[in-house]
Amino acid sequence: MRLVRFIDKADGIVFGRILDSGRCRILRGSPWQGFEETGRVVEVGQCLAPIEPVNIFCIGLNYRDHAAETGARLPDNPILFMKPTSAVTHPGCPIPLPASCTQGPEVDYEGELAVVVGRLAHNVKEEQALEFVYGYTCANDISARRWQKHSGGGQWVRGKSFDGFCPLGPVLVTADEIPDPQALRVRTLLNGQTMQDGNTADMIFPVARLIHLLSQDTTLLPGTLILTGTPAGVGFTRNPPVFLAAGDQVEIRIDSIGSLVNPVAGPIQGS
Amino acid sequence: MRLVRFIDKADGIVFGRILDSGRCRILRGSPWQGFEETGRVVEVGQCLAPIEPVNIFCIGLNYRDHAAETGARLPDNPILFMKPTSAVTHPGCPIPLPASCTQGPEVDYEGELAVVVGRLAHNVKEEQALEFVYGYTCANDISARRWQKHSGGGQWVRGKSFDGFCPLGPVLVTADEIPDPQALRVRTLLNGQTMQDGNTADMIFPVARLIHLLSQDTTLLPGTLILTGTPAGVGFTRNPPVFLAAGDQVEIRIDSIGSLVNPVAGPIQGS
Repeated sequence: MRLVRFIDKADGIVFGRILDSGRCRILRGSPWQGFEETGRVVEVGQCLAPIEPVNIFCIGLNYRDHAAETGARLPDNPILFMKPTSAVTHPGCPIPLPASCTQGPEVDYEGELAVVVGRLAHNVKEEQALEFVYGYTCANDISARRWQKHSGGGQWVRGKSFDGFCPLGPVLVTADEIPDPQALRVRTLLNGQTMQDGNTADMIFPVARLIHLLSQDTTLLPGTLILTGTPAGVGFTRNPPVFLAAGDQVEIRIDSIGSLVNPVAGPIQGS
Repeated sequence: MRLVRFIDKADGIVFGRILDSGRCRILRGSPWQGFEETGRVVEVGQCLAPIEPVNIFCIGLNYRDHAAETGARLPDNPILFMKPTSAVTHPGCPIPLPASCTQGPEVDYEGELAVVVGRLAHNVKEEQALEFVYGYTCANDISARRWQKHSGGGQWVRGKSFDGFCPLGPVLVTADEIPDPQALRVRTLLNGQTMQDGNTADMIFPVARLIHLLSQDTTLLPGTLILTGTPAGVGFTRNPPVFLAAGDQVEIRIDSIGSLVNPVAGPIQGS
């Protein structure tokens, strides 16, 4: 099932199942409670992020080629950081460059496969871990590199948590349609030019192992989102470096899932 | 107003306002929607964590004396990390030692003043920041030191995010009763012995400045919890080091707020 979430004029925020025609059938319910189909079929218009995550776990340096380009050695355990839920933004919505980035360009893209946990997971075995996945979507782990690396005392969260720093969606593909999450091409395009072109086969910690490890002594609640890391080609490792500028358009494209496009905007002022 | 949250036999999960008699009057509503008093007065029994936070921001090294004991230099900006909401536990509930801590004792206490954000805060001025505080409670920023420092690739989140690693409560004191949050004595007692005895006057970034800084280009949602850092006296900096063991009892005591007591338990097994 390929799901989208959007604002319907009649019913408010709803989920829809995408049909072969490209239109979608409106559903009642939620990923956690289950869905019932309604009789209404509508055009797929402007989509929202497909879920409102309860917690956003992010994995650093999870692709061999990206670890290599940053000069980091391969990690023994997943490098875990988080984003606040307030960072989530919708497909098509502008990513605002923070006014806090006062020392010149530093905002970077990171195209990532995002995993939505569908069932409460605790001490899950790796062999069973994929049974806890509700589905997959596209994410962009937007990162302010100075804040991430130099202004946060070594902790990455501040540089990863500005408003709009977690574009998500538009399509949430249920797990049954992705039998092997380790065989997906992940690309990032900046103004139409390919910047990242990786494959989830290159992950150091595949999805099942991530869920196994993250769930040790730790409850992953339904609605937990896991951003699984980014392949090589991010902006800050390039020569010369490439950072996002107002007017840019950034697209995350993942095979079998879809395409997440967001424009980049200047800082939002005021309180 | 001094609030507690608990399970009432008649009404389910409710808030209560503590009365001078030590009993509490049951309220209808929530901190975000406002409260109405009911006619029912009951004994204050076993309390829950006073809120279910939407995001948990934590500040590292925010007391001058604690920065000194760890050998760290004073940070230029707040050192920000997060805990998942799944880490929250209730007063009196056991803090389980993670089975993942396989290399011997490493689990440590950190007594902290916790700030509950009550109104959506974005680009808030320092002079107005305390107007966005709903209230204050006690927190224990439980930390697995090996995971925090050595097994997480330098990112603290894994060592801070195990189940039960965020005891909270029991009393949520509304902001009007704490005119100066920078004049509170914060103590941690381990099995009745004082281990930390600090004062929020020693904070490098006081509460108002934290809210100002964290809200820059970032929306703090109502229900956001900010753990404001811990004073000197944590276990791992002692000689010899002190770590939590099954059977211990740890208490966080903050002037004008209350006392948060949790026992420590062995690992929980199974999936």
